[in-house]
Amino acid sequence: MRVGLLQFTPQPGDVRANLNHIVRSLTGTSADLIVLPELCTTGYLFSSRDEAAKLSEPVPAGPTCATMAALSRDAKTAIVWGMPALAGSRVFNAAVLVTPQGQFHVYHKAHLFVDEKDLFDRGDSPFPVFDLGPVKVGMLVCFDHFFPEAARSLTLHGAQIVCHPSNLVLEYAHTNSVTRAVENRVFWILANRTGSETLGEKTLAFNGRSQIVAPDGRLLVRASPNSEELLVADIDPAEALDKKVTPRNDLFLDRRTDLYSI
Amino acid sequence: MRVGLLQFTPQPGDVRANLNHIVRSLTGTSADLIVLPELCTTGYLFSSRDEAAKLSEPVPAGPTCATMAALSRDAKTAIVWGMPALAGSRVFNAAVLVTPQGQFHVYHKAHLFVDEKDLFDRGDSPFPVFDLGPVKVGMLVCFDHFFPEAARSLTLHGAQIVCHPSNLVLEYAHTNSVTRAVENRVFWILANRTGSETLGEKTLAFNGRSQIVAPDGRLLVRASPNSEELLVADIDPAEALDKKVTPRNDLFLDRRTDLYSI
Repeated sequence: MRVGLLQFTPQPGDVRANLNHIVRSLTGTSADLIVLPELCTTGYLFSSRDEAAKLSEPVPAGPTCATMAALSRDAKTAIVWGMPALAGSRVFNAAVLVTPQGQFHVYHKAHLFVDEKDLFDRGDSPFPVFDLGPVKVGMLVCFDHFFPEAARSLTLHGAQIVCHPSNLVLEYAHTNSVTRAVENRVFWILANRTGSETLGEKTLAFNGRSQIVAPDGRLLVRASPNSEELLVADIDPAEALDKKVTPRNDLFLDRRTDLYSI
Repeated sequence: MRVGLLQFTPQPGDVRANLNHIVRSLTGTSADLIVLPELCTTGYLFSSRDEAAKLSEPVPAGPTCATMAALSRDAKTAIVWGMPALAGSRVFNAAVLVTPQGQFHVYHKAHLFVDEKDLFDRGDSPFPVFDLGPVKVGMLVCFDHFFPEAARSLTLHGAQIVCHPSNLVLEYAHTNSVTRAVENRVFWILANRTGSETLGEKTLAFNGRSQIVAPDGRLLVRASPNSEELLVADIDPAEALDKKVTPRNDLFLDRRTDLYSI
């Protein structure tokens, strides 16, 4: 199985330009699963909840999902990307997965970062795992990586690959994603963005270095801090079914749930 | 508060030699808390459960605890070390804490590594936190670091410093302890050993690089892979009471316990 990520700099507020860029970038790619950054169709900074709502779309009814479904079908790859999702009067910071067969799955970010708390509703989905046939996949968005319970919930329910669209401004995720991979023995695809955004007095610089980590912690690919990159790695997702870190230590069977108080 | 660690190479099976070495090394040290490696009074490899039992002692009734209590009193520092602990007919891979006032606390390793499963009983203590007055301390032993639930249990119950006596042969703990520190916003003292041990056809090489990590992930000190080192760092343990990674993100209050299924 070939998995990959696209690291790039979205244009703030210009959904059409970002979709065109994504379509150009992924057309001709040979992969089974490609992960894009968080909020990569809209950019990250919104002046208000109303602006976030205006740029959000229903999933899968909106035009962004239509474009992504066509791209997924044409490029013959499942795609995971971040976008603001409208659900009734609620707006979520969402990760969406579409398959070449047109199936959609969605995850609403559970742990909101800083001013996202003013813009989005807190995710309501208990870390769903999606069975794509050859592999089970989970999604987290950016700051979710800080909470080991999130990745644990996904992997205890069978996720072999964690797709992690991100807009990182802190340094922690690159280290944490290695730990998340090894403590759960899963593949981890961290798709971060590059560039910066300014809104009023606030400027955020995003730090790239997107990476794919193997269940044993090896970095299979890593992007630079600044440049646009499309990276792929060939993996055997069955490796993530084996939770043994030694012949006598299965990381899931060795858990002491009788002793934890969390 | 000054905390530290002693990285060294224990002599297999020679408790008296190891205690003498520890006393020589810590005498004259100025610190409030020093952490030593796992099983550092006996060495790591035992040929059988009987041999482990023979080298184990009751805590705090045995001579090792008596020596450590005297050292703690004389050096005016709390000491955490690893030793095999006898409790009735059970033998635990234990971390013991003694204070200059002669108070003892003990933790029994919960997650046993490889052939330790033949030698020791599984720990029965639900990750106790010990209040030393100026600071609350928890202990984990080596392989426990793989399980985020262990450190989470300690820190949710107030531990500001996690003392982590280890005999590491895998590469993961150095990365994982940084993640454990930042995801829980605690200080982490990883005291690893150096050297190698051979028993029959089995040889284990221990990989040093003991380190103290701050709640923001900074490495305050790090030892070399091979040499004996006594390292200290001045810390403000109150930093570990503040769980905010941003002004609007408290890592404990932001947990979504309504969504986790672990």
